[in-house]
Parts: sequence; C-alpha cells; structure tokens
Amino acid sequence: MSEATSPARIGFVGFGIMGQSMAGHLLAAGHPLRVYNRSADKARALVGRGAVWCDTPGAVAAGSDVVITMVGYPRDVEEVWLGAEGVLTRARGALLIDMTTSSPELAQRLAREAAARGCRALDAPVSGGDLGAREARLSIMVGGDTEAFAQALPVLQRMGKTIVHTGGAGTGQHTKMCNQLVIASTIMGVCEGLAYARSAGLDPDLVLQCISGGAAGSFQLSVMGPKIVEGDLAPGFMIEHFLKDLSIALAEADRLGLQLPGAEQARKLYAQLVDQGHAREGTQALSRLYGARA
Amino acid sequence: MSEATSPARIGFVGFGIMGQSMAGHLLAAGHPLRVYNRSADKARALVGRGAVWCDTPGAVAAGSDVVITMVGYPRDVEEVWLGAEGVLTRARGALLIDMTTSSPELAQRLAREAAARGCRALDAPVSGGDLGAREARLSIMVGGDTEAFAQALPVLQRMGKTIVHTGGAGTGQHTKMCNQLVIASTIMGVCEGLAYARSAGLDPDLVLQCISGGAAGSFQLSVMGPKIVEGDLAPGFMIEHFLKDLSIALAEADRLGLQLPGAEQARKLYAQLVDQGHAREGTQALSRLYGARA
Repeated sequence: MSEATSPARIGFVGFGIMGQSMAGHLLAAGHPLRVYNRSADKARALVGRGAVWCDTPGAVAAGSDVVITMVGYPRDVEEVWLGAEGVLTRARGALLIDMTTSSPELAQRLAREAAARGCRALDAPVSGGDLGAREARLSIMVGGDTEAFAQALPVLQRMGKTIVHTGGAGTGQHTKMCNQLVIASTIMGVCEGLAYARSAGLDPDLVLQCISGGAAGSFQLSVMGPKIVEGDLAPGFMIEHFLKDLSIALAEADRLGLQLPGAEQARKLYAQLVDQGHAREGTQALSRLYGARA
Repeated sequence: MSEATSPARIGFVGFGIMGQSMAGHLLAAGHPLRVYNRSADKARALVGRGAVWCDTPGAVAAGSDVVITMVGYPRDVEEVWLGAEGVLTRARGALLIDMTTSSPELAQRLAREAAARGCRALDAPVSGGDLGAREARLSIMVGGDTEAFAQALPVLQRMGKTIVHTGGAGTGQHTKMCNQLVIASTIMGVCEGLAYARSAGLDPDLVLQCISGGAAGSFQLSVMGPKIVEGDLAPGFMIEHFLKDLSIALAEADRLGLQLPGAEQARKLYAQLVDQGHAREGTQALSRLYGARA
C-alpha cells in the first residue's frame, strides 16, 4: 500500500475554524491534500499552501486514500457523504472519517453505506475547541472497526492527543454526546454560582479562588469562570453548535428512554439565547440569562 | 493575651464526622479543649484524649478564648449560640466561629448579637468533606472583620489549607452557597452523561477516560464518576446535608431576586431521593434517579 512508503493522500471537506487548523497540520506533516468547502474562500489559505481545490466532495474522494469530513450539522454530513456529488459516489476503497459532531444513528448508517461500496468508515468527533485544534491537542473519540482505527491512528495523531477507540460504529458520536451532556449542566452550575456571587455582593475573583480547587472545581469553572466575571463572551465554542449537539443528544436520550432534566433545562436556556440573537457567542454567554453582566 | 505565650483555650461544639476530625487536630496541636455535643457518645474519643466535657454550650464558652461550632442545621446553630444555655450566655470577650454551613442572614445576626456582648464572631464554613477534615486540608471561607480573621487564622490553619477572608459577616456563608450551587448542577451533568453512556451501551470506563481530561472535566466527574460506575453510593457528603445547603442557597437566591433553574432541578431530584429513603447516602446517589445502577 502506498501509505507504507509515502504519506497517505488525504481529502478534507469542511473548513470552519477547527477544520482549517486540523487540515493545516496534515499539510504541514507532508500529506498531499485535496479540499472542498461550501464557501471556497475558507479553503483559500490551504490552497495557497499547496492543497488541491476540488469542486465537489466526490472529486475530493476520487484521488484520496483517506477522506475526512468536518462540517456543521448532520444534514450537511448526509449531503457531503451521500449526496449526488458526495464522497461515496467516487471513493474507491478509501478510509472515510467523519469528525463532525453528529448523530450516532447517522454514523451507523454511513458505516453501512461505506461498507456496501467497499470502503471503511469511522465516526471520530473531537473535543478541545479552537485552541485544541490549533495546538493539535484534540481529544478524539473513534467509533468503528479495529482495523480501520489502526489505519486512521497515524493521521488522527497529527490533530489530536487523546485518541480513544470507543467501540463499533456510532460509539464515537455517543461518547461525544456524553461529553456534551456533562458540559451542559456543569456550565449552568458555573453561571448560577457566579450569578449568586454577584447578587450577594461578593468579590467574584475571591469566590473563584475559594471554590475552584475543591469539589466545585471544573474545567468550565477554571476556564469559563474568569471569562464570565470579565464579561468576555467571545466564542471558544459557539452557542449555535452547542445547541445542535444538545439537540442530538436529547433526541438520542429520548430514543433510549432516558430523561435528562438538567440537559433539558440547559437546552431551553441556550434556545432562549439563540432567540435573543446570541447564537454566535461562546457557551459562557449563558451567564447573560442570569444577569451576570448587569 | 494568653494566646501569645500558650495555645488558645478552645471550646468546640458539634461532633459529626467532620467535627471529630477537626477538633482532634486542635487537641493534637496542644490546645486545651472544652467540648459539648447533643449526643455525648460522639465526644467520648476526644474526652479520652484529654478534652474536658461540658454539659452545655454555655459552659464550653465560659472557659474558652475561642469557641468553634460545627453543628447541623441553622436552627441548631441558633440554639447553640442564642439558646438559654447557649454560647453567648457565658462567652466573655471570646472569638466565636461558626463553621456550620448555615444561612448568611443568620451569620450576620450572630455577628451583631456577639458584638452586643463584647465578642467577635466569624462565619467560616468549609468544603472538602470527611477526607479534607481528616487530612486537615479543608477550604475555609471566612466572613467577618479583619482583626477577628487575623486572630482566627492560626487556629483555622490547624484544620484547613486554603483559608480565604471573603469579606464582612455572612460572606463566608454566601461563598459556600456559591460552591454548593456550582456542585448541584455539575453532579447532575455527571450523572446524566454516565446514564447516557450506560443506555447507549458504551464502556463507562472508556467514556471517563475520553472526557475527564477535557472541557467536561471536573472534580465531580473524576471523583464521583468512578463511584457511580461502580455503584458505590457510600457518603463522602450526605444527601440530607446537601439538600439542606441547597435549600438555604435557593432561599437566599429567592431573596436576592435570582432564578437558578439548574439548582432548583437538582434540589427537586435530591428531595425525591430523601423521600425514597436515601438521605444518608452520598451525593453521587443522584445517579439512582437516572437508573444508573439498573
């Protein structure tokens, strides 16, 4: 196989902020890169560095050993893989990796469709945000068969640090849903504690100093807490994307017969923020609803 | 003052699991100790080590430079400080420190009542649980005037590691409420994420490995997560006490005009657990309501 002697030829579809960083690492590592994005301008910098622009996802797949997709919503994943000009129309024995946070059921369907065309598929959503993508320190949760995981690993290691094979098709997405469900209520707790601090007239920096190192401590408290106190609502991770993830997670939970009232409450609050025009702020802007900037 | 040349004489009221450890550190450090507890048997070990048993909180206060109370509910604090045989009936210029997690308003009232009798008072609730108390590594949040804080500090350092002067009377309690509010939703998120993992057929240990180091990470996920997975519901911190704390916090929030839906949801769930007879299990037993042991 060509991968043993020269770097795998990689196709990459989807250049949001994270996708641009991730593809950049692959290019820097010497992988020939074929690219497509709905808005061509977001791929321009990569093309300037040697990536080959293609007019369709299918054309990306045609000349690639590995195809990676990192798009927005499950419907975008569906279009990019299964559409009339999609990846699966022209992939020939390639390894296909969807790194979008998307529906576990769709991931299972894509694995079946890929197998029917002689391809292997993995669902490999990430966590770690813009910064993790930029620094190639993402956590990557990978669902699919063991051989496909082994083949993908050297490529994924260019983009991530903690890379875990979580089981069969769909388990990467399911694991990411767990991650988002935990975050949903955690950040709600952080916003509520800090809103209380402000209302009670406490010094919020002293409060963070008191409680961050103990049983209330979390990544959200340590990273988002100071931003909330300073009123810095710029996105590390955008509300509209988080709301998408929560909606997938709660639809799955419903299908599994689970009630998750904390995450349901968080979803309601994030939906309010979107209604109020804050879809493109960071998840810490949940603090708005508690009057934390008043 | 006698403190400069010999260890302060300390009175201690309240020997739950944490109180016993905390008073033990003071005794070990050479402080003469006068003790009272509603159930005398819980003070027996300390008396065996040289503490002097007293029949009332007032008698504890009579011979003490510093009086520490660590009881259950705000009504217990009120009785121990203000009752007919309470600390304030016989304290003479002593420094009075309530370390119970209790109401901020009561703390302010106690400070006023103490001042009216020529005493200083501090509210100094702790976090860190049984283990923190045993290892003298508690976080202690101290409200009250600066001189009283300075006087208390060497005594508090026998029991805690992070000791922060949070401001005037009541601010220690307010800060503890922030801590509990953050925990309330955080642990709900942990239980929901792990319930999802189980329902989706994931390996919960792999899920913890994937998500604990990232944006979903927290003390609750790292410490309670494995207990939830193993079905270990033994108390580090009991549900009945946590429910008390949440009730105080939400009453204060209401008084401050704040709505905290995440904490409200958590309180409802914990109240259900108490109704079901689980009051003396650990806070991680919230996982029961998500069927995590089914």
